[in-house]
Amino acid sequence: MATLCRPAVSVPEHVITLEQTLDLARSRHADHPGLGLALRLIENTGVRRRHLVRPIEETLRHPGFEARNAVYEAEAKARVPDVIREALRSGEVRVTDIDAIVFVSCTGFTMPSLTAWLINSMGFREDTRQFPIAQLGCAAGGAAVNLAHDFCAAHPRANALIVACEFCSLCYQPDDLGIGNLLSNGLFGDGVAAAVVRGRGGTGISLERNGSYLIPGTEDWIAYDVRATGFHFKLDKRVPGTMEPLAPALRDLAADHGWDASGLDFYIVHAGGPRILDDLGKFLDVPADAFRFSRATLTEYGNIASAVVLDALRRLFDEGGLPDSARGLLAGFGPGITAEMSLGRWTSADGGPEHGRLLVSGAAR
Amino acid sequence: MATLCRPAVSVPEHVITLEQTLDLARSRHADHPGLGLALRLIENTGVRRRHLVRPIEETLRHPGFEARNAVYEAEAKARVPDVIREALRSGEVRVTDIDAIVFVSCTGFTMPSLTAWLINSMGFREDTRQFPIAQLGCAAGGAAVNLAHDFCAAHPRANALIVACEFCSLCYQPDDLGIGNLLSNGLFGDGVAAAVVRGRGGTGISLERNGSYLIPGTEDWIAYDVRATGFHFKLDKRVPGTMEPLAPALRDLAADHGWDASGLDFYIVHAGGPRILDDLGKFLDVPADAFRFSRATLTEYGNIASAVVLDALRRLFDEGGLPDSARGLLAGFGPGITAEMSLGRWTSADGGPEHGRLLVSGAAR
Repeated sequence: MATLCRPAVSVPEHVITLEQTLDLARSRHADHPGLGLALRLIENTGVRRRHLVRPIEETLRHPGFEARNAVYEAEAKARVPDVIREALRSGEVRVTDIDAIVFVSCTGFTMPSLTAWLINSMGFREDTRQFPIAQLGCAAGGAAVNLAHDFCAAHPRANALIVACEFCSLCYQPDDLGIGNLLSNGLFGDGVAAAVVRGRGGTGISLERNGSYLIPGTEDWIAYDVRATGFHFKLDKRVPGTMEPLAPALRDLAADHGWDASGLDFYIVHAGGPRILDDLGKFLDVPADAFRFSRATLTEYGNIASAVVLDALRRLFDEGGLPDSARGLLAGFGPGITAEMSLGRWTSADGGPEHGRLLVSGAAR
Repeated sequence: MATLCRPAVSVPEHVITLEQTLDLARSRHADHPGLGLALRLIENTGVRRRHLVRPIEETLRHPGFEARNAVYEAEAKARVPDVIREALRSGEVRVTDIDAIVFVSCTGFTMPSLTAWLINSMGFREDTRQFPIAQLGCAAGGAAVNLAHDFCAAHPRANALIVACEFCSLCYQPDDLGIGNLLSNGLFGDGVAAAVVRGRGGTGISLERNGSYLIPGTEDWIAYDVRATGFHFKLDKRVPGTMEPLAPALRDLAADHGWDASGLDFYIVHAGGPRILDDLGKFLDVPADAFRFSRATLTEYGNIASAVVLDALRRLFDEGGLPDSARGLLAGFGPGITAEMSLGRWTSADGGPEHGRLLVSGAAR
């Protein structure tokens, strides 16, 4: 058993609104033949505002890959620890109770991973396992949940910490002028999220099954060009249509578990863009309201990459959670095109005699 | 139960000998005040030859990060599939029997990971789990074994494939002139390795326990500077002395398992350099001969990063393996400074009635 506890989420203090984004696109790309289309696409995202680690004037300048990556590291060190502390408090575990850190981030690159710095600076145990993942993009939020779930299954009394650190604004490339790039410039935002996965006890999603699915032949639909100027985001125009081939994978995973993917009690999915959510509702045959948590993340923060699923889950907690044993699905979507999916039931620490016993057993470790 | 089967290893066709390395250092750094020291350090590595993905003349030129990374991707696509096919044959599993791919590589960067391309081009199932790891450096060989072990523990009938793809020569930086850099230029080599970890059956190391250890306060001792010119390797002169603090972690892991780390039947460890092996022998109190597999890798291929432990293990298989139940230790060391450790027993598919039964059960999946 592994329980995904309440995520902590933090977005930076610099804000850019939809209107400011549209004004910037108009002023910087006045002569672009696709400007009208780009403006419509950005408006259609439904993203009302985004948060940035640096002021917009600084974000629009490109100081070089080295300087950008140095900002990434400095901002991560400044912003991640507080989010982790809140996640540990919400999960009711101490820093020394954590046995593994899954750190997912695709918007900067360091070696060693930030996990080494976190262990050294925050008091994690020296034997904490490190799982840094940089190459699963937006799917990494789901992958992190699944990796933590597997780790707790393999080490039954262990606890894992998930951290998603995404500063998408630091991948802004002023010279990338494809329609997909102009759209991305209005879609992605910055955010940090963290959550504890407890091997025993805890309130949240009790994880029961996980799985992956890769849509054949789509590996170049979402990709980075790696250049001297850093990571250049490539987004194929077919990506918004990928829920049609992915929905059956979600249905199959649920069916393997004896569940009907159309009739679950909650859905926490990556909000890559509005059509992802619209199509998923259509192909899974669930009402639009089922994705209200993901849609709120998209509207208020933009696509914050691997952190979306954790923020959407945080909103479910904020709504008050669910009755015990409510069944649901969590899924990240990203490059590959890959879905990282999991199924679980809501569980509360005081949800019944069995849960109470598990909590006591967990606390006694 | 999870069994690490015989690794397949391939090194590229372009060879550079110790003498050629020393001549190059003399001619390119004739005026370097530390040349004499660098030459002695390189000679002391014991590395007699290394293999490179591109001819040395081309390796010495730096065509820019983008071109370098393009070479990385092209060479990986050209070289990895054959190694995987051999690993699958050795593990006696089909490509469709693989449930997860752990792909470790720190000498190039792609998103999506090569795992997506491998699934698409080699016939792996669409639901194969992808675990790409780029940020654990040389420790990633051990980390891959541990991740595959945990995956098989969490999904009891599953099989995992480990791939280590390291083209260290593509991180050569002509303008990095520190002593640590000159030494590294003579130490690291290129290689690709792969191995199957079977959830049922198979001949090799039956994995029983794993763990990690990070030496506090050493996160900048092995690190990349990430710049417009790519990854710049930083090696602190204190790194060769790290076996003194790491040996107790190996001892503790063995003791937790009821074993004495000084009295095991085999040792498969990362050969970062000669002093790593010398010191580990001293601090674990085992004869130098115990590390003959790792030392042979170092001598013949150089430090091929995360692929070292798989190549050293391949040499143990080539020596004829061991009697059933022989006990041993496998460990990768790398940035953090991190050790990724595991303990296991030699097991052969025909090693007894129980193993025979497991193999039949595995084959019937």
